[in-house]
Amino acid sequence: MGDYTKMWTELGLDLKGHDALLSVLGGAYTNIFLSQKNRPEGMKYFDFVMSEVHGLRIQELMDAKIQGRKVIGSYCVFVPEELILAVDGVSVGLCAGAEFNFEGAETMLPRNTCALIKSAFGFKLGQVCPYLEASDVVIGENTCDGKKKSYEMLAPLVKDLYVMDMPQMKSESGRTLLKEEYRKLIDKLEKVSGKKVTVESLQKGINIVNAKRDALRRLTELRAADPAPISGLDALLVNQVFFYDDPVRFTDSVNKLCDELEDRVKKGIGIFPKGTTRVIVSGCPMAVPNWKLPMLIESVNAVIVGEESCVGERGARWITELKGKTVDDLLDTITERYFNIDCAIFTPNPSRLAYIKEMSKKLKADGVIHYSLQFCQPYIMESGPVEKNLEKSGIPTILLETDYSEQDAGQLKTRIEAFVERLHKK
Amino acid sequence: MGDYTKMWTELGLDLKGHDALLSVLGGAYTNIFLSQKNRPEGMKYFDFVMSEVHGLRIQELMDAKIQGRKVIGSYCVFVPEELILAVDGVSVGLCAGAEFNFEGAETMLPRNTCALIKSAFGFKLGQVCPYLEASDVVIGENTCDGKKKSYEMLAPLVKDLYVMDMPQMKSESGRTLLKEEYRKLIDKLEKVSGKKVTVESLQKGINIVNAKRDALRRLTELRAADPAPISGLDALLVNQVFFYDDPVRFTDSVNKLCDELEDRVKKGIGIFPKGTTRVIVSGCPMAVPNWKLPMLIESVNAVIVGEESCVGERGARWITELKGKTVDDLLDTITERYFNIDCAIFTPNPSRLAYIKEMSKKLKADGVIHYSLQFCQPYIMESGPVEKNLEKSGIPTILLETDYSEQDAGQLKTRIEAFVERLHKK
Repeated sequence: MGDYTKMWTELGLDLKGHDALLSVLGGAYTNIFLSQKNRPEGMKYFDFVMSEVHGLRIQELMDAKIQGRKVIGSYCVFVPEELILAVDGVSVGLCAGAEFNFEGAETMLPRNTCALIKSAFGFKLGQVCPYLEASDVVIGENTCDGKKKSYEMLAPLVKDLYVMDMPQMKSESGRTLLKEEYRKLIDKLEKVSGKKVTVESLQKGINIVNAKRDALRRLTELRAADPAPISGLDALLVNQVFFYDDPVRFTDSVNKLCDELEDRVKKGIGIFPKGTTRVIVSGCPMAVPNWKLPMLIESVNAVIVGEESCVGERGARWITELKGKTVDDLLDTITERYFNIDCAIFTPNPSRLAYIKEMSKKLKADGVIHYSLQFCQPYIMESGPVEKNLEKSGIPTILLETDYSEQDAGQLKTRIEAFVERLHKK
Repeated sequence: MGDYTKMWTELGLDLKGHDALLSVLGGAYTNIFLSQKNRPEGMKYFDFVMSEVHGLRIQELMDAKIQGRKVIGSYCVFVPEELILAVDGVSVGLCAGAEFNFEGAETMLPRNTCALIKSAFGFKLGQVCPYLEASDVVIGENTCDGKKKSYEMLAPLVKDLYVMDMPQMKSESGRTLLKEEYRKLIDKLEKVSGKKVTVESLQKGINIVNAKRDALRRLTELRAADPAPISGLDALLVNQVFFYDDPVRFTDSVNKLCDELEDRVKKGIGIFPKGTTRVIVSGCPMAVPNWKLPMLIESVNAVIVGEESCVGERGARWITELKGKTVDDLLDTITERYFNIDCAIFTPNPSRLAYIKEMSKKLKADGVIHYSLQFCQPYIMESGPVEKNLEKSGIPTILLETDYSEQDAGQLKTRIEAFVERLHKK
């Protein structure tokens, strides 16, 4: 990585803290990702992206800003990248995946707050997230109670926090509310960017994002093969980079990776031997560098073949239909697309359970590992009924609850080993 | 109390568990309430109500049912009693204030669930809440994540669970959503009761509920006197009985109590000496028999002069304006009334903070004790900023987080004592 000290200083980063963070991040990446055997060549692109995630990519954002484009940061898959692209903005996911400066975060937030929210505050208070510092607007959303209420405290800390309201039910009024919120978001984006959302610009945005999702869909389908052509860790990484990278370049890189994986599948080449125990991870999102659980799972003779998560299928699987002749028509199809997302904030949320079953079948999983972040009420509340129902349908399931610390790694590994052993005997 | 065994059996109560509960409840009531010195005569009515809370009052519900009236149970102040009365229904709050059968509740709910929700499940699974068993419909609401998601699990356990959606912001769409939900609730109530909501029946319902609230307003205002004419424990009890009792009789009894308290104020008679340290309790609702915190506070030479809580001011303070000539007009004023409620589920929620300050001033409080139920994210999230802001305004504030167990009573008492000492020195 080149010397970005000047850029980081201009962004107001705390250089000492940031150096410490990058050093830990780099070490973890080397240990977890680069140590994997038999990785696809196509992962080299993602290795490069990760090595430059606070460097070259931020430089690109700064260049885009010089060209008059706006950087829009967000924390949730309910924020439509299509709309951001339609005003020629750059959409970036914001840092919330590491236990950084939790002492600082806990001066503002209750201790019983999920690690993802604490992490967002830790990064902000520690001034170590260049994505956040580069953002012209941060878009929050009223999903869970934790995020909803913490945005009230984040607002005075960031340049321009804009909070979208969210429905809680998949009702007609829920749909109306979501569309209305997207309409207001367009107003906000137009105001910030000084550019108008037109039918053409919105169609272009939809096409770019759909292509990203199509590429991820190819990746998902290829993971149905036995042996799995790619590790769960690498597939998760691709899903994580989805939120940071230039969308066109990302799509191209995923498609190249998929070409290689197709070839692997034809030749029966896998990352683990044929017959390796296959699991799906379902539950809370895993933001970079939250790799603890998949690392543990793939260290005990199991391979993850799918992520039912916002950083995974739940975030990427639906396509926005390109129909209609007005911005309002397109807003309908965008609303339609995002209203499908089966986040646990919705009540009831039966389609999530149905899709875990469908994924298990399609991807030939032997079992499901349900992952909840501690204190994430929506997913933890849903996990009990999900477990009961999956087990009843003959899909072995284990519930794991954890945070971003390494303290429970040994205990988690023991439980995962026992679960994989159970699947193996099946 | 008479012999209600037959009625309880018919309701499907678990008699053994129910006996155990009543015995604990009766003992606690004697120790906490009847041991108070110098109580107003008017509290005798509430003592009687409490002694018959699972007896005579349930008999009344059963008699009402025989007369064709429906019993509608609920857990939240967003459920308008006006609408229930408009179909000649009986509105009852449901049991959620005691640590009963938490082992059972935790077979369905995560351990990190607030005591109020666990309690509702404990009572249901243990079959010891005659109000729940007598309810023809239970009305849930999408307030916090915990309640929203737990209703999915409660639904199969009760006869007829109807869940109202809730807004999360005080926006125009929020108001529209609430009104729409109230309209749907009318449909549901009409269907269940076989009776139509008319302008006359709705006006009658509004008048009955407004009278209840007016009586409570008198009570609130009388507590501004020094010495306080009534203990915080007794005032809380009145606010708790609000949810169970026949509304007209309740109003009459509160007004009689207030007549007596007015006389006390004139004569300078108080429950504690003049100059006793005065506090307001603000935060989560306290359902019967959740008396732990007020008991501790009033055991250390302090008097509670107000409750900024759903079982208190937040639940009762607004009046529904009687204006308009159609059911839809009246629905507007009802929506207007309930949309004022400054529950922490709303974001942002500045009026709650403003009202705590207003209460502190009007009731001449020396400080605020912020009470959060463990794992109640909305109130716990709000408590930090509330504390900072109140302290900045010169109102000493302490944050307490607890559940329904007695295990932390000693620790709480020590903290409360130190806080009262701080107020005393001021």
